[in-house]
Amino acid sequence: MAAPLFNAKLTVHTQSHDYPIAIVEQCDMATSIAPYINGQQVLIVTNDTVAPLYLQQLQEQLADSFTVAVCILPDGEQYKNQDSINQIYDALMAQHFNRDVTLVALGGGVIGDMTGFAAASFMRGVDFIQIPTTLLSQVDSSVGGKTGINHAQGKNMIGAFWQPKMVLADMSTLKTLPARELSAGLAEVIKYALIMDIEFLEWLETNLPAMMQLDLAVLGAAVKRCCEYKAAVVAQDEREAGMRALLNFGHTFGHVIETHEGYGSWLHGEAVAAGMVQAAQLSQMMGWLGEADVARIKRVLILANLPIDPPPINVDTALELMGHDKKVKGGQIRLILLKSIGQAVLTDDFDTQLLNDVLS
Amino acid sequence: MAAPLFNAKLTVHTQSHDYPIAIVEQCDMATSIAPYINGQQVLIVTNDTVAPLYLQQLQEQLADSFTVAVCILPDGEQYKNQDSINQIYDALMAQHFNRDVTLVALGGGVIGDMTGFAAASFMRGVDFIQIPTTLLSQVDSSVGGKTGINHAQGKNMIGAFWQPKMVLADMSTLKTLPARELSAGLAEVIKYALIMDIEFLEWLETNLPAMMQLDLAVLGAAVKRCCEYKAAVVAQDEREAGMRALLNFGHTFGHVIETHEGYGSWLHGEAVAAGMVQAAQLSQMMGWLGEADVARIKRVLILANLPIDPPPINVDTALELMGHDKKVKGGQIRLILLKSIGQAVLTDDFDTQLLNDVLS
Repeated sequence: MAAPLFNAKLTVHTQSHDYPIAIVEQCDMATSIAPYINGQQVLIVTNDTVAPLYLQQLQEQLADSFTVAVCILPDGEQYKNQDSINQIYDALMAQHFNRDVTLVALGGGVIGDMTGFAAASFMRGVDFIQIPTTLLSQVDSSVGGKTGINHAQGKNMIGAFWQPKMVLADMSTLKTLPARELSAGLAEVIKYALIMDIEFLEWLETNLPAMMQLDLAVLGAAVKRCCEYKAAVVAQDEREAGMRALLNFGHTFGHVIETHEGYGSWLHGEAVAAGMVQAAQLSQMMGWLGEADVARIKRVLILANLPIDPPPINVDTALELMGHDKKVKGGQIRLILLKSIGQAVLTDDFDTQLLNDVLS
Repeated sequence: MAAPLFNAKLTVHTQSHDYPIAIVEQCDMATSIAPYINGQQVLIVTNDTVAPLYLQQLQEQLADSFTVAVCILPDGEQYKNQDSINQIYDALMAQHFNRDVTLVALGGGVIGDMTGFAAASFMRGVDFIQIPTTLLSQVDSSVGGKTGINHAQGKNMIGAFWQPKMVLADMSTLKTLPARELSAGLAEVIKYALIMDIEFLEWLETNLPAMMQLDLAVLGAAVKRCCEYKAAVVAQDEREAGMRALLNFGHTFGHVIETHEGYGSWLHGEAVAAGMVQAAQLSQMMGWLGEADVARIKRVLILANLPIDPPPINVDTALELMGHDKKVKGGQIRLILLKSIGQAVLTDDFDTQLLNDVLS
């Protein structure tokens, strides 16, 4: 007898409404999301990589019950911009869709962020549903309602907080995910362990090999754990007034890498991995982490096939790019550092010379 | 001894926060808004018509206490688009402004709507303050948090609900307003009377001549009354799930005129005036208004120098344009009609043939 498929559900509590995250080993997407579609109009937004894999079946099945249109965008972080959002608007207008419409994001974090922002801004806000098809979006970007696009001078500068009606994480979609993308997702998984839970780090040190070999039940368990962490944080601090910022561990350094190298060159998760090492090194200089802690962090990232060194970037350029970060307050760069493994803090109380040392 | 200047304050209650509307006959703008600026960064957004009149003084005085930048956009509804929003983003990024920034909208409804949407979407939401300098924006668009831009195929299709930190209506700015723009604003003033308060209509029939002659105290009293109506509606139905839609009386017909004639050709208030007559005519065909009621509506609009007839538009084209309206639900056009003067209803229960008759 086959083992039952992994199947979990949790609820995210937000100011606007509560919504479910379903994490399933394998499912029929249309059947799973249909109960969360109000009205008769559906626009599926996806990209040219994901479309050939999952679009036809989803579209055909939804078409039995709804008026379904499709917007296929080019794949990649470099297309996370206003032009793509305009394509979504144009598709909605061409169909005469209105406030009744539900947008369905079928793809990774880029598709989810853009679809969410289009949903937040079309007719001042319509429904959307997330079907994340990458590990990174399953554990991170599909949960919590951060939507948006990049500005030429900064990542995620334009956007809105806008919560989906439901999130469907179908683990079987990870079978078609390139290994490099899987690793990029593992960077965010490891991030949760580093900022919140040293026991989860131990679990990952044991289970990462199975995850890399696409054991969907183990992956499902990890995704569920990450979504639980994130849902707990979002429920307390939806608009990132405080503790939600801790989820950006490694991201301030990582955004510098992404912006400097050009969107799409380094994957977001890869930049976060190298950025977490930089944040850990600064935490060590502050006397909070030991050498062994930093070595352990590097080891687990290497186990997930992730980079631990940033590309060469001039220190002044890096500081300039950091100046655009959304966490900057009163002109002062604020960073998320580790007091210890499993305990992160947001602080502007660090020696600028130490930051320079880490960046150089 | 001179009579004391008109000076009133009211509070708008919304889900996110309460905020004041100050309606004053004349004031020092910088002093009035400074207490509502959190942080050190200010971006004033204005247009090339208003800038020569009020920008320099406001900018210089604010610069004593804040880091102030300016974004001057071309004047006109035809520039209420994504390009203008991008100019605001670019100005914010060029200054390295961040979540601490306050955007100040200095101008009419177009500037207010665009500045509000830029504030709603920059870094997923920053503060903004409205200084409406047209009668239309003082009585309508600056109150209630509707922000947005036009899409080539429809007015206000892209936007957000985003509430300002305060609204400052300085009646003396109306002295520099072209007479045609003053009349356009009066269309929205008359709208409140028609949908909510027949006694206010009587007051207007008496006082419109003084308002047309720029009696600022009488204008201030009218603005205060309109803001009170609107604040009461917004407090009950911020996101237009129900009664807030009534404020769009004349707007579904009016949007058809604006879209068909090209943004900037008919002023919004002019289109609303002609649209209110069409809605009144349909209300008469429904047996709700008498012939004398429609004649009275036309008379008060003429008194305010407003058009009462739409331009020639093909019926099918008009219906096609109406199909894009945000109030369309389940494919059915919904209209705001008058049960009587002072009492509006949102309904889809009208004979399509009657709508055709009105449009032709």
